Amino acid sequence: MSLTDWLDDYEDRDWRTATEGTVRYALVGLGWWATDVAMPAIADSEFGETTVLVSSSSEKAERVADENDVSRGITYDEFTEGEASEDYDAVYVCTPNAHHLEYVEAAAELDKAIICEKPMEASVERAERMVEACEREDAPLMIAYRMQTDPAIRRGRELIEAGFVGDPVSVYGHNSQPLLEMIPDTDQWRLTPDLTGYGTSVMDLGIYSINTARYLLDRDPVAVQSMLATDHDAFEGLDDERASFMLDFDGVEMVSTATQNAHNDSQLVVTGTEGQIEFRPAFHGECRLRIARDGRSVDFDREEFGAVEEMREEFDYFADRLLTDAPIDPDGEHGLVDLQVVEAIHEATETGGTVDVGR
Amino acid sequence: MSLTDWLDDYEDRDWRTATEGTVRYALVGLGWWATDVAMPAIADSEFGETTVLVSSSSEKAERVADENDVSRGITYDEFTEGEASEDYDAVYVCTPNAHHLEYVEAAAELDKAIICEKPMEASVERAERMVEACEREDAPLMIAYRMQTDPAIRRGRELIEAGFVGDPVSVYGHNSQPLLEMIPDTDQWRLTPDLTGYGTSVMDLGIYSINTARYLLDRDPVAVQSMLATDHDAFEGLDDERASFMLDFDGVEMVSTATQNAHNDSQLVVTGTEGQIEFRPAFHGECRLRIARDGRSVDFDREEFGAVEEMREEFDYFADRLLTDAPIDPDGEHGLVDLQVVEAIHEATETGGTVDVGR
Repeated sequence: MSLTDWLDDYEDRDWRTATEGTVRYALVGLGWWATDVAMPAIADSEFGETTVLVSSSSEKAERVADENDVSRGITYDEFTEGEASEDYDAVYVCTPNAHHLEYVEAAAELDKAIICEKPMEASVERAERMVEACEREDAPLMIAYRMQTDPAIRRGRELIEAGFVGDPVSVYGHNSQPLLEMIPDTDQWRLTPDLTGYGTSVMDLGIYSINTARYLLDRDPVAVQSMLATDHDAFEGLDDERASFMLDFDGVEMVSTATQNAHNDSQLVVTGTEGQIEFRPAFHGECRLRIARDGRSVDFDREEFGAVEEMREEFDYFADRLLTDAPIDPDGEHGLVDLQVVEAIHEATETGGTVDVGR
Repeated sequence: MSLTDWLDDYEDRDWRTATEGTVRYALVGLGWWATDVAMPAIADSEFGETTVLVSSSSEKAERVADENDVSRGITYDEFTEGEASEDYDAVYVCTPNAHHLEYVEAAAELDKAIICEKPMEASVERAERMVEACEREDAPLMIAYRMQTDPAIRRGRELIEAGFVGDPVSVYGHNSQPLLEMIPDTDQWRLTPDLTGYGTSVMDLGIYSINTARYLLDRDPVAVQSMLATDHDAFEGLDDERASFMLDFDGVEMVSTATQNAHNDSQLVVTGTEGQIEFRPAFHGECRLRIARDGRSVDFDREEFGAVEEMREEFDYFADRLLTDAPIDPDGEHGLVDLQVVEAIHEATETGGTVDVGR
């Protein structure tokens, strides 16, 4: 393929099979991510439309619905009871981790398709129950790994598959943010053990490095080691204010750092025998691809591709799958592996040794 | 300090105490590094002069001496016996790792000062013997960590000390090169277990990340974990064709990768609560500083600062210490810690667990 074609096709939707149709969404959980990113992304999407908003109170649900020209705003309880279920085809679950299961189960029982935020739940056990519930009800389930439909990541993956880096040798993934500056409140769900699950930095940030590496390498880690640490009072009850961990991908090793309490940065690098593929920034709607080989490197920049565009691609991919009855790639089984990895990472610091994934 | 002053003083020799004098060097080991980098660096230095070359045969030593206008070329045996010892004041040892001890011991007994390449020897036990020999003879010993006199690294260290990154949180170090492309011969000392020591990728490449992180953070690792692996035939008998490892700096964790069999790249990043200090490339005479804080970043570029200039700074630092009888910073005890770390890294893969440094 010529470089011209490659650049022209950079954002091509190589996954696309649908030509028409609309998926109507109920959004469950109305944090800033849902209102500021997911809703604009669905509005901007080809195959999607937000028709129902679900929150803790009628007041909030109706107010946000009103502000965003959405026809219905209902409570979690009403949602679970099937209220307004004729008004949507699919459910986007973006509550705190520990509440995903109940709304996915409710949606599955209502015969709806589901796209659930990552990590899919707060524990392996609850994630397994989610997979079982969707299988039982034959409900389509996608875990919202939006990096997998980011064009930069897809082009990087194609290059790796085509041998651009030779044999992959090592991977580095980093994801850090100053959570307490972004949300200056220690009483938030990402810092609440019962709501987040195994911790916060690996669950919320490290998972980007882990899952994107799995996607780029097209293989899964078999064992992990870790050094987790917490000093700051705001992280009480959580063992990973800072997280350093290594993943054994059975022939490729990955080292990774993640923290909710540091300068904002993200980077993902795959180094191979012949070259290198890098993303920096790597995540959060700022994914930029750099490729290097034989002492030469090329940077690919895109205008106007941010978090909303990244989410738009993800929603259109999901809708495409539903409209054509095609298989969904980051499904429940796929998301479950990440929770097994995260669980193993937390266990590895407790034991000080190597922990196999999904024992 | 104003940005103007900072830039103008970027390459200032803040360590400088000497105003005059000359240190005459005997170079022990005449590989490409000695002839193509060390000799030009000494020639370019303010306080140094190469007067004796030492190699395996008279023929080679004399030929290289002749080609480089150096007055004497002698054999290792002649050197050990004290031949031409009136013609030099200090010895630069850059043989394969496992031969450092014998030439450092000989030099110490001849009452010479010594600058010895890193890693200082092939094992902790031999490194300890080197420290003891130099103490016994009261011989000044510097381990040749040239990153510690690279202006970019020194400026970065000052920024960290001044709080630019806030509290350091995590460190990433990477150092990879395609050794078999650089030296297309499987019969080379870096691939010969008896000559290199604990392995090759951590000893020869990872040590840059480890030592420079120690210098930047001004603290030492207390425990390590690792995943080392070898597949390629050329690395037979060595356990670390690929190396991934984590260092616990007791409050800061570092993740690191090193390999002799991959695309050429180096990077060192210190991420803190408030900002980031980064070097990329990080090593091998190409060290470039980037600093970031609050969403803003600055890159510092230098013209004409390569491996020769890096070595020049190191030789002048060493000479400065000798001429003014000042303490030498990366001394034998300092170098010994790196060997303890490298030994622990190799042991950690055998045990699959955490290994304390210098138990």
